[in-house]
Amino acid sequence: MDTSGPFDWLDDAARERARVGLTRRVRPRSPDDGLLDLAGNDYLGLTRHPDVARAASRAAERWGAGATGSRLVTGDTTLHGELERELASFYGTESALVFSSGYAANLGMVTGLAGAGAHLVCDRHNHASLIDATRLAKAGGARVSLFGHADPTGAGEALATVAASRRLVVSDTVFSVDGDITDVAGLVGSCRRHGAALLLDDAHGLGVVGPGGQGALAEAGLCGAGDVVVSVTLSKALGAQGGAVLGPHRVIRHLVETARTFIFDTGLAPASAAGALAALRLLRTDAWRAGRAREVARTLASELKARGLGVNTPRAAVVSVLAPSPDEAVAWAQRCRDAGVRVGCFRPPSVPDDRPRLRLTARASLTDADVARVVDVLRATSPVPAGIS
Amino acid sequence: MDTSGPFDWLDDAARERARVGLTRRVRPRSPDDGLLDLAGNDYLGLTRHPDVARAASRAAERWGAGATGSRLVTGDTTLHGELERELASFYGTESALVFSSGYAANLGMVTGLAGAGAHLVCDRHNHASLIDATRLAKAGGARVSLFGHADPTGAGEALATVAASRRLVVSDTVFSVDGDITDVAGLVGSCRRHGAALLLDDAHGLGVVGPGGQGALAEAGLCGAGDVVVSVTLSKALGAQGGAVLGPHRVIRHLVETARTFIFDTGLAPASAAGALAALRLLRTDAWRAGRAREVARTLASELKARGLGVNTPRAAVVSVLAPSPDEAVAWAQRCRDAGVRVGCFRPPSVPDDRPRLRLTARASLTDADVARVVDVLRATSPVPAGIS
Repeated sequence: MDTSGPFDWLDDAARERARVGLTRRVRPRSPDDGLLDLAGNDYLGLTRHPDVARAASRAAERWGAGATGSRLVTGDTTLHGELERELASFYGTESALVFSSGYAANLGMVTGLAGAGAHLVCDRHNHASLIDATRLAKAGGARVSLFGHADPTGAGEALATVAASRRLVVSDTVFSVDGDITDVAGLVGSCRRHGAALLLDDAHGLGVVGPGGQGALAEAGLCGAGDVVVSVTLSKALGAQGGAVLGPHRVIRHLVETARTFIFDTGLAPASAAGALAALRLLRTDAWRAGRAREVARTLASELKARGLGVNTPRAAVVSVLAPSPDEAVAWAQRCRDAGVRVGCFRPPSVPDDRPRLRLTARASLTDADVARVVDVLRATSPVPAGIS
Repeated sequence: MDTSGPFDWLDDAARERARVGLTRRVRPRSPDDGLLDLAGNDYLGLTRHPDVARAASRAAERWGAGATGSRLVTGDTTLHGELERELASFYGTESALVFSSGYAANLGMVTGLAGAGAHLVCDRHNHASLIDATRLAKAGGARVSLFGHADPTGAGEALATVAASRRLVVSDTVFSVDGDITDVAGLVGSCRRHGAALLLDDAHGLGVVGPGGQGALAEAGLCGAGDVVVSVTLSKALGAQGGAVLGPHRVIRHLVETARTFIFDTGLAPASAAGALAALRLLRTDAWRAGRAREVARTLASELKARGLGVNTPRAAVVSVLAPSPDEAVAWAQRCRDAGVRVGCFRPPSVPDDRPRLRLTARASLTDADVARVVDVLRATSPVPAGIS
């Protein structure tokens, strides 16, 4: 019996993606492939730091490979509690709640704090996980407006037109593709003029921006604010897996009791919690890492710009380099790889506009010689002789 | 400046939850608290199996604590590929795709295979993650109908009234709260009469039902079907963390290229992938585990029923015991705990009806003496002298 009929349309969809240069394939890497990595989000170079890898390894031996259930049933360990206390203390909030991913943290944060009758006012370039969170909140009865990218005044204008008594502004801090930072102080100002709450995703800010990598809230002088809630990931600067929501006690208590991606999901694996905790402790002791990541990004960007490439002005650890087309972006990334340098290649729908780019991440552990090599490789392999911008 | 205003409503919501007995708190456990565990979803007792814990531990040492990026950028390792090949081979599908959680797998599976113009026909008691997935698909333009719980005829009737050319039936196989199993062969029959696809969540079936724990698809004789796609978790019978979607090559290729919870999420931590892979290999070699888990469940249920408690008739590894009220369910679970036995306590909104219950999971590694002890403790601590049903 031919039972494949219901999925015949997938072949047409695949052909269409191939036609417009948007085919995607996983590409398994080995633990030591010898490439210089500028594609991962391991901004501080901590994923394989001996303290971090060992903490994860020992936690797996001590606790087993998994948490065995929802945090509300059997999945909560003393390790999760320890991580949450130290995260809140480092970030400067009353409380923290760990989820199994940053995606889950965003879904839980937004849907848990919205609900029927709320109105969400969202940056137009928010991350996919915030967009999905907003869609779920909308399905639960919330209304949604968008405002112009990184425009606090626009957010204020949107709030002014909204009648709902419960209003929330939702934004990334550091936007993942171009590494630009929204005006957090401006956003909170707009929120306070209208009695709205502010929900931020600081996934690419924690460990990179703010004093010692404390994050975007500290940079904006907003630690301890009663009207701001932040999500972070444990899988980028903290080198592990998972996510967390940080904010006032009563917000965290509410999420424990209502956030579906917290209640109905298995708790984060102990090894991931332990790895993130070890990385967080390194962040405290090695305060130079955050500054070094940003310095590497600035150097990379200015050197690439000097060589005629279309590059952003990084304020975090992401350097984005425009490519002429999706196909040329893929080919360029492959030439970099052939020359020993791994860079990210972002095409629609993973870019906020329709412009494909290479995405370079400025790890704190890159040396000046590494940076010089990357600049040479990018330039030598560029499909853009005169630069585009 | 008092900035807490926007979240004042959370205190009222907390008081209301307390009033109706639905307060929830995390309760951190230590690695060795001496309790006999019948609350976790570690159905086969593999989370802390030496092979599984050691595999996770070694992977953390070898690869580091995290995958460092999306599977499409740097987060794909040879370990993920190996796990996917062995999962597909064990489960009997062409291909598999690992996500960072079962929740993410369900969101990706449903939204990736629906899209504008599709019509989803869903079991009324589906898991929260499938419900959220359906809500997201609806936000993307799909339509949604519900059918009566575990009723393939109802699914067929719903399909008959639907005009959309792309129709999908969505259901759990084993429902998590009561452990009942839907009629998979009946569902696929209804689907085929209407040219619809079938999407199943076998999170509580993998490792427990079917020959040697091969899962619900094998039990229904549907391995290799071109019109059926299944999600599983790596965090229950496989003792680790993560989820996967299993199905035809072209379905998996489509999800790689379109599923937002795959594309925009950090890859599963190598330690979790390695732990799940080691557990899967134990499942292959120790085919007795699945049968033992089901046997323990049947024994528990019949012994508890004989003592006058309101108990389900388990076909998987979940035993559910009705409690008179949310407060009494919590107090009963606490008395079990005081007597050394950890059981789950499920209250609204985590139950499909409004009836609170204790939820016991029948681990394959429980001895007959453990089972006898659990029965004694449940009976001695019961708030239900004459039994309720």
